[in-house]
Amino acid sequence: MSGWLAIAGLGPGAAELVTPEVTATLARATDLIGYAPYVARVPERAGLIRHGSDNREELDRAALALRLAAEGKRVVVVSSGDPGVFAMAAAVFEAVDGGDPAWRDLDIRVLPGISAMFAAAARIGAPLGHDFCAINLSDNLKPWELIERRLRLAAQADFVIALYNPLSKARPWQLGRAFELLRKELPETVPVVFASAVSDAKEAVETVTLREARAERANMRTLVLIGSSRTKLIERGNGRSFVYTPRSAGVVP
Amino acid sequence: MSGWLAIAGLGPGAAELVTPEVTATLARATDLIGYAPYVARVPERAGLIRHGSDNREELDRAALALRLAAEGKRVVVVSSGDPGVFAMAAAVFEAVDGGDPAWRDLDIRVLPGISAMFAAAARIGAPLGHDFCAINLSDNLKPWELIERRLRLAAQADFVIALYNPLSKARPWQLGRAFELLRKELPETVPVVFASAVSDAKEAVETVTLREARAERANMRTLVLIGSSRTKLIERGNGRSFVYTPRSAGVVP
Repeated sequence: MSGWLAIAGLGPGAAELVTPEVTATLARATDLIGYAPYVARVPERAGLIRHGSDNREELDRAALALRLAAEGKRVVVVSSGDPGVFAMAAAVFEAVDGGDPAWRDLDIRVLPGISAMFAAAARIGAPLGHDFCAINLSDNLKPWELIERRLRLAAQADFVIALYNPLSKARPWQLGRAFELLRKELPETVPVVFASAVSDAKEAVETVTLREARAERANMRTLVLIGSSRTKLIERGNGRSFVYTPRSAGVVP
Repeated sequence: MSGWLAIAGLGPGAAELVTPEVTATLARATDLIGYAPYVARVPERAGLIRHGSDNREELDRAALALRLAAEGKRVVVVSSGDPGVFAMAAAVFEAVDGGDPAWRDLDIRVLPGISAMFAAAARIGAPLGHDFCAINLSDNLKPWELIERRLRLAAQADFVIALYNPLSKARPWQLGRAFELLRKELPETVPVVFASAVSDAKEAVETVTLREARAERANMRTLVLIGSSRTKLIERGNGRSFVYTPRSAGVVP
């Protein structure tokens, strides 16, 4: 009996964005573990035990997955988007690092998925066509001062900035503070894209300028993209615009 | 007759990493356009005209795709990885922006793919589990001074850094220079991952420290990941290590 653990990305929501690798691996699993809404995205079948949990219990969930794999189970931990980006893969390796030494030699694989960032970018054009960064705006696991420092340095580097986890009920003010800070560093005309629930029925994508950007436009399922100084809008006849960042850059800022 | 243009990501190489959305769109296309090795990854079939081209002709390729879509063809432009990341999507929108105004109202969609960065990260663990950035190391379309400035700011922000296009025959010294610069900004013990040809037969992934990192380890198909000060190695019994970046960060650097 040889167990394994796969940490799989389900992509942003639509079934047509789940890779065949993930689908095939789920078909061979005995145990499915994850935040309950993600577990719910995997069809039920006989022989697959489902372990849904709360969003806050990442390390517990990781340890459960490792124990089951060590017992010989075929375990899939599911994340939304890509599991390596502010999701379950890092939590699993933290648990390996701090846990039973035997866990290090388990068969553990990470199966990439379509990340929220790239799904959002695809919907609006090519905003990530030039150098960019991704910042998790949650200060649950790092000090807010560090996030501010990163935002400032990212703007000075003229990166396009993708903000994950922009706000929640427990973190209502951070996104507004980030916009205030960025307005001091960047032209107020740079495009800001609010991409919510991309690829599912509640999808909503809108583009404003940094001057107009307000935290109220975001919710827990929003990915916020902030253009660099070179990011451009292409106006269209239907009133919707494309947003893209050219591949070339001019002089050093 | 209603044409359209899809800019599709084929992922890093393996067929099991191509999304069903891309596969279904390719099945409905009349014209396939791209850099010849990527076009070659799509199976031939009757009714699908293949337009392979050289790697340097991105804007010409984009204009051809737009002209064909305007004529009513169903056109797919293929990129490796994700088309929005240092690939064809930005080139197409540059061509739209500077070209025939009628092109703005074409049906143009971007279909995301598994990016080289996330495929490489998945192979080694979870190096992108905390804030990160992606820098195209090619100075074909931007000044080298700007790249140096970004590397320095990225290190000061303590981002994990993904380097795309680290070197080529025409750009032999840039990666070595980047390592030199980063050794002044970061602890020399941070892990550096060289991930080449991920998911295909020639895959090779190795991890060294920043102190040991040499440009000679990379080739045109290598993605280089440079850890932050917090990125860790987990040693395993088989001699291969996991690399991950914890979700939490301590004090402001």
